[in-house]
Amino acid sequence: MPRPTRPEAGAAGFVRRPVQRFRDGRDTRLDDAVAEEVPVAMVYNDAPFAVMMLTPADFEDFALGFSLSEGLIERASDLQQIDVHERLEGYELAMRVHEDVVQARTGVDRERLLPGRSGCGLCGARTLEDAVRHPKPVGEGPRIDAAVLETALAALREAQPINRATGSVHAAAWVDPQGKIQLVREDVGRHNALDKLIGAMLRAGTDPQAGFLIVTSRASYEMVTKAASAGITVMAAISAPTALAIHLAQSTGLTLIGFARPGSHVVYAHPQRLLHAAGAPA
Amino acid sequence: MPRPTRPEAGAAGFVRRPVQRFRDGRDTRLDDAVAEEVPVAMVYNDAPFAVMMLTPADFEDFALGFSLSEGLIERASDLQQIDVHERLEGYELAMRVHEDVVQARTGVDRERLLPGRSGCGLCGARTLEDAVRHPKPVGEGPRIDAAVLETALAALREAQPINRATGSVHAAAWVDPQGKIQLVREDVGRHNALDKLIGAMLRAGTDPQAGFLIVTSRASYEMVTKAASAGITVMAAISAPTALAIHLAQSTGLTLIGFARPGSHVVYAHPQRLLHAAGAPA
Repeated sequence: MPRPTRPEAGAAGFVRRPVQRFRDGRDTRLDDAVAEEVPVAMVYNDAPFAVMMLTPADFEDFALGFSLSEGLIERASDLQQIDVHERLEGYELAMRVHEDVVQARTGVDRERLLPGRSGCGLCGARTLEDAVRHPKPVGEGPRIDAAVLETALAALREAQPINRATGSVHAAAWVDPQGKIQLVREDVGRHNALDKLIGAMLRAGTDPQAGFLIVTSRASYEMVTKAASAGITVMAAISAPTALAIHLAQSTGLTLIGFARPGSHVVYAHPQRLLHAAGAPA
Repeated sequence: MPRPTRPEAGAAGFVRRPVQRFRDGRDTRLDDAVAEEVPVAMVYNDAPFAVMMLTPADFEDFALGFSLSEGLIERASDLQQIDVHERLEGYELAMRVHEDVVQARTGVDRERLLPGRSGCGLCGARTLEDAVRHPKPVGEGPRIDAAVLETALAALREAQPINRATGSVHAAAWVDPQGKIQLVREDVGRHNALDKLIGAMLRAGTDPQAGFLIVTSRASYEMVTKAASAGITVMAAISAPTALAIHLAQSTGLTLIGFARPGSHVVYAHPQRLLHAAGAPA
């Protein structure tokens, strides 16, 4: 996949703004680090597709991950070119994809890429039948020691530079079976963070069956859909899953862990991949 | 505005699922309360518009708030009918609106309501120019004592039944100038929770200038847009705002408070509406 045609702008992902902080009856004026959120127009073969609100960092990862998650391309090589343009109102990601590739994808035809109306909510879904996707079953995947999950959780905070500065952005992290964090991507949007990570994994040639995913957010239906579609077999969320996310994890074979925190976690689907120390009562 | 044609289903907003909890080396099987998230097709005058992932409660509030936030209607009376249909895959909100009303709205024409492609990201935005909306300046609004904000924050947790059961859903609350919580709406999606609240306020005849908004999430650009568009003048978020949200709050005149917690908060725009006890150093 080609590099973008210009260096990434706004790569820090945050800016400083003057604020008034009130704490314990005291009023302090200071400059606070605030996460950036900018409109990014996703343009395929000159046709505007959607505008995403994005933290302006890792554009090329996002372009790839988003295009895959939305089913607009099938593999990394289908995305032939990415040009990042800075505009008055935000950014434009001008992408080139094979028309053949786009037409071949279920439910994605030329019509979808032509200028026209756009909606909201679930991407590309206008009817209930479109909305509920069924990713194919995930593979065998690894066995993960619960202690390894804890190791990664403890290390994750230090691996989130934008969140450390602002306290307000989500992260998606890829961890190897030994608990080493290999990739982290951050964004104000949890879906964006995961799309960036999926793009980064593809660009790095990461095997989605040799490791596990941590997201610092809840596990919604769309998050599990993205993970399963990318071939990921184990997903740990810091917060709770929804009922529909559990249902989807069960049906695709994905191991879904929620409330993943030091010392505790809850397994909602396919516990067989998570190994706990012998002697723990069942 | 009419009542929906059938009683609201799934009004609890959560279900129970068997889980395995690991804590301090112990493995416990239990039934856990999990937030519901279902696809809800938004259908206007028989034309599908979008599918939203929603916690199935307060459908009629959501129908009204969403239609207003998206600029599909201008006032509550424009929404003539709401029929809630339970489908195999989720719910359908079949709504009737005046075609005249829809056509009169800037950027919303018949074309947008016709079956066709749909996108994702910012609702109805396909280009950067569409994406950044400029709500008209908000009104004078109230003066709020900082102590009143604290009172409301302390009371809010008890007013979130779905979150108390599941620990995983957002709330948007409307508070009167004395700190009494008047309305609360919950949803897995923070945008949905706010749309539900805005709908509920309209149905209750609540004056958006006589009180303030608390959201349990971050304050993104879209959240501030929704609040300002509804005429709300003071918004307090439990977590951080984004840089674009601050910019929008400044330009529309909305008082934006972040990290609103017992004993502390940060003011990011228009501090004049928030009164602190005399004697606090400036």
